[in-house]
Amino acid sequence: MSDKSINEQIKPYKKEADYSYTLGAFPTYELINSRPETVRKILVDSSYTDQENLKKICKEKKLTIEFNDKLIAKISDKENCYVAGVFDKYSCELRSDKPHIVLVNPSNMGNLGTILRTAVGFGIYDIAIILPGADIFNPKTVRSSMGALFKLNHHLYPSFEEYREQFKQHELFTFMLNGDKTLTLENSPKAELFSLIFGNEATGLNDSFKEVGTSIFIPQSPDVDSLNLTIAVGIGAYVFTNHRS
Amino acid sequence: MSDKSINEQIKPYKKEADYSYTLGAFPTYELINSRPETVRKILVDSSYTDQENLKKICKEKKLTIEFNDKLIAKISDKENCYVAGVFDKYSCELRSDKPHIVLVNPSNMGNLGTILRTAVGFGIYDIAIILPGADIFNPKTVRSSMGALFKLNHHLYPSFEEYREQFKQHELFTFMLNGDKTLTLENSPKAELFSLIFGNEATGLNDSFKEVGTSIFIPQSPDVDSLNLTIAVGIGAYVFTNHRS
Repeated sequence: MSDKSINEQIKPYKKEADYSYTLGAFPTYELINSRPETVRKILVDSSYTDQENLKKICKEKKLTIEFNDKLIAKISDKENCYVAGVFDKYSCELRSDKPHIVLVNPSNMGNLGTILRTAVGFGIYDIAIILPGADIFNPKTVRSSMGALFKLNHHLYPSFEEYREQFKQHELFTFMLNGDKTLTLENSPKAELFSLIFGNEATGLNDSFKEVGTSIFIPQSPDVDSLNLTIAVGIGAYVFTNHRS
Repeated sequence: MSDKSINEQIKPYKKEADYSYTLGAFPTYELINSRPETVRKILVDSSYTDQENLKKICKEKKLTIEFNDKLIAKISDKENCYVAGVFDKYSCELRSDKPHIVLVNPSNMGNLGTILRTAVGFGIYDIAIILPGADIFNPKTVRSSMGALFKLNHHLYPSFEEYREQFKQHELFTFMLNGDKTLTLENSPKAELFSLIFGNEATGLNDSFKEVGTSIFIPQSPDVDSLNLTIAVGIGAYVFTNHRS
């Protein structure tokens, strides 16, 4: 296919499309380093200052690089985007012998990206998303993950039951405002192979999740409605991975 | 002053103005409950569904309530805003016998709001901001704090030294990627009267902060550049307050 016809196809992001974008240098470098086989092309704005380095790494990885200010402006919603990657969406399987984070119906792309970055930060590289949920390949998610998306395995499940069916060995911990076990430093659960399960930003996990494992409450003041979802995931991931190391 | 002349003065938010807004029902209720003395008026869109409750509480607190769809649309950047509060900016002093969170040059209003919500969530009600920093009264900060701003004391300092001068009794903990002490569950510092100090989103704390107290490293994978600032604050606040309780 000629460059021209590829570019004619490239449009502002659509959820239904089989490709997506990294917007900005940082996530684009993470894409190139972690998932080079998915890259269709790297786009560079003529005013980008670090072109030599980018050219070098694209040459090493045998990736197409194209200077195209117009196309970057077309796909980017921000003005200061000088580098973008066009990549094929891909699918992954979670590993059965590694800990997981399970997000039930996450609704906010910025939060989802921050959670991916946080998971990788604490060494959890397998993420399940129970649908419906925010689009993991949306450029907003990718950007807020700082490219961590490309370093981990993710898989979408139509229901929590289907996830559970596939991973019967994992010890399940559900984070709930009415959780039975309070997560303290001195008395937090220890597990080697665990799934940390979190609900939607607005509604949390419904009461049916109290039956699926150990329900956990992160102690918090009555002066807030709840902790932010990303903070809850961060604390859960910190405590559980700290025990393992 | 007549209603008309007040409304002519009300404009989309400006940092220099001596008043700001809560946009949305949740933060507006928090404003009414926690800082009623600062309220100029409560604005309601005619399509808001829970008007009776809002009227009742405004009557109890002797607050002016005004149905004004046009004015809400004018000050709000989102379409689904049905309730807003107009309030006077105010100043606070931090308490010398309570733990603090100190934010050095925070740059993102969404992060700042999330940090305020998280601080209140862990029972830390005294927040210092070292300038320059994101605008704590910007409606975006207020919204992302979910109104937690109104429940805490905050104070802006022109430099860290001025903050330190005022609070000599606090034990200082600086969160840094090259921190000397790794924050583990088994071996985390215990303190009753502490200041948890965090740097800017992009740059963190500079090396001069290694000399001001105990420097702390939250263990994290080399696969991320750093943890998100809000996550770092959440974990710091969780660990230090969990020890106290």
